[in-house]
Amino acid sequence: MSSTASQVIRCKAAVAWESGKPLVIQEVEVAPPQASEVRLKILFTSLCHTDVYFWEAKGQNPLFPRIYGHEAGGIVESVGECVTELKPGDHVLPVFTGECMDCAHCKSEESNMCDLLRVNTDRGVMLNDEKTRFSINGKPIYHFVGTSTFSEYTVVHAGCVAKINPLASLDKVCVLSCGISTGLGATLNVAKPPKGSTVAVFGLGAVGLAAAEGARIAGASRIIGVDINSNRFEGAKKFGVTEFVNPKDYKKPVQEVIAEITDGGVDRSIECTGNVDAMISAFECVHDGWGVAVLVGVPHKDAVFKTHPINLLNERTLKGTFFGNYKPRSDLPSVVEKYMSKELELEKFITHSVPFSEINKAFEYMLKGEGLRCIIRME
Amino acid sequence: MSSTASQVIRCKAAVAWESGKPLVIQEVEVAPPQASEVRLKILFTSLCHTDVYFWEAKGQNPLFPRIYGHEAGGIVESVGECVTELKPGDHVLPVFTGECMDCAHCKSEESNMCDLLRVNTDRGVMLNDEKTRFSINGKPIYHFVGTSTFSEYTVVHAGCVAKINPLASLDKVCVLSCGISTGLGATLNVAKPPKGSTVAVFGLGAVGLAAAEGARIAGASRIIGVDINSNRFEGAKKFGVTEFVNPKDYKKPVQEVIAEITDGGVDRSIECTGNVDAMISAFECVHDGWGVAVLVGVPHKDAVFKTHPINLLNERTLKGTFFGNYKPRSDLPSVVEKYMSKELELEKFITHSVPFSEINKAFEYMLKGEGLRCIIRME
Repeated sequence: MSSTASQVIRCKAAVAWESGKPLVIQEVEVAPPQASEVRLKILFTSLCHTDVYFWEAKGQNPLFPRIYGHEAGGIVESVGECVTELKPGDHVLPVFTGECMDCAHCKSEESNMCDLLRVNTDRGVMLNDEKTRFSINGKPIYHFVGTSTFSEYTVVHAGCVAKINPLASLDKVCVLSCGISTGLGATLNVAKPPKGSTVAVFGLGAVGLAAAEGARIAGASRIIGVDINSNRFEGAKKFGVTEFVNPKDYKKPVQEVIAEITDGGVDRSIECTGNVDAMISAFECVHDGWGVAVLVGVPHKDAVFKTHPINLLNERTLKGTFFGNYKPRSDLPSVVEKYMSKELELEKFITHSVPFSEINKAFEYMLKGEGLRCIIRME
Repeated sequence: MSSTASQVIRCKAAVAWESGKPLVIQEVEVAPPQASEVRLKILFTSLCHTDVYFWEAKGQNPLFPRIYGHEAGGIVESVGECVTELKPGDHVLPVFTGECMDCAHCKSEESNMCDLLRVNTDRGVMLNDEKTRFSINGKPIYHFVGTSTFSEYTVVHAGCVAKINPLASLDKVCVLSCGISTGLGATLNVAKPPKGSTVAVFGLGAVGLAAAEGARIAGASRIIGVDINSNRFEGAKKFGVTEFVNPKDYKKPVQEVIAEITDGGVDRSIECTGNVDAMISAFECVHDGWGVAVLVGVPHKDAVFKTHPINLLNERTLKGTFFGNYKPRSDLPSVVEKYMSKELELEKFITHSVPFSEINKAFEYMLKGEGLRCIIRME
């Protein structure tokens, strides 16, 4: 039992007080974990587009003050009642979506969309009492997707915590909490390209490059990167991308360009932009008879996917995925092992690193489109 | 070698001279099979909607005079050069689409959309010389989808002929050449409902009932039939349908009705109407996390499938199928065996039978929506 268990911990957190304004590093109180919760000491966290998207609060209901952050690695400090599978000292990845192990989704081999702990971006409180565990002088500070890792300590539902190999470097595997696993799993768990197949990846940001990394691991013979920013091609080669198509370079739809260079279409495609036109292209560029398209990117809420039904009737498959179909607690430990065995190369995704005191720099890098992942060192 | 081999055969055929006008039974000349072709003696044929659709010639390029018919059972009379896998006397099912065994589709385990012999409804001639094998006093009579089974003898590409167990009753298994296999395969080969799952079938015509039969064989616990004709429910029970939903009975979209009675959606759905709104409902009525929707029905050429991408991102799968994903030569013999072992009950589909001389009655039954399949006895 740590000396801090059952106590309120005072520590530093990066608090967002207003949309789009720099985070403020300041002391917060972190209450002890309640039933089914754990309190984590965060060692490393990284910045994902989703943090920035909700911090900018364009189009959603703003909820401030709030502590963002959902890609992280840490150590269990203490556990609440009813927590049996985690103990202080365990190395863990907190995850923005959970696995209760008890609902129809958790019991299904195919789904990771837990009824109880599925991601909820609107909720700023814990499930147990619908209150926050963060406060400043008694004033509640809201949580973000149940993780709020931009804090030296945070409280998370035990169902949203993956216990991993303690030998894994947390400053690397912390990026597996969200984006990298999302892209990797979209390929390995959903698209499942056979060895030697052709794969198109739409969008060469971190998620798309993780999808390409999955195709490289699966042994794809051609990996076609599609992006409207040609500067991304050179860097994408490290992730296995062998060819590049910029839709802006052609007058015809990109699906036709891809069909021409692949004798009728790719075997698999993975859409990582969230742009609905890219989704349609990603679907229509797969080969008839056996092609599978997987949608990853989240579109605008009013977007409509449209296609002629014959594109489906000609034996194409269209699927979507959430968090790469990984069940957070059951599956993430094995993704960490893929990194440990050097099958999965995480270092390529980590382009920047800053101390916690400079967390706003990580936001600047992302807003400028510089690099892929910036690790934020808490100590 | 039969005495007719290499000879022109004079026999009776039902010739369509004009769109929508009764077929005329008259004597035709049937030329011997050329390279890679076989000549078949047809014993039983049945009428499918596709024959009627092209006979009505609403919306396609009309091609007359023509001999329709593509569901049939027969015996090989003679074979052309290069035909090694069939010999006179073999019991066979001619099929409207083929399997060359050599193209990328035939070599793929997943596809049955042969590049060489894929269905072609516009072509009225044989591939070998782009001429017809049927004539009347030297005037060519066009083929239909390479089968033209409304004739006592017909010539078919050997790649479009499935050799089957000679003990199988051709007056029953002839219906496996098209519609019944299409629905059955959509369920068994594509939707693949696990034992105990819930399945919705849209459209309770012959194809939809075959899809339901597939769900019954697979051990589905609930099979929900969806049709705008409530009279179809009683008969559908024989095919395993346990519940019935008529979209006209509700103000809300039928996908919402189905979600309510199934705790969030069915595990699998199969769309057999070809109506694009039914396609959208069939997709949106499957459960998130694991639901699979399979499109079978062929829509109007201008139809557009539309859905919100979130329906896909929530881990639903949308697939289409052609001929139930059965490879005609490789797979149909095993479907015949399913009938022989009484697993598949074909008798239920056969509601009428007429002698060849009364073939126009079969058209009348179908136009009136009476029954499912009418067997036409050639002798």
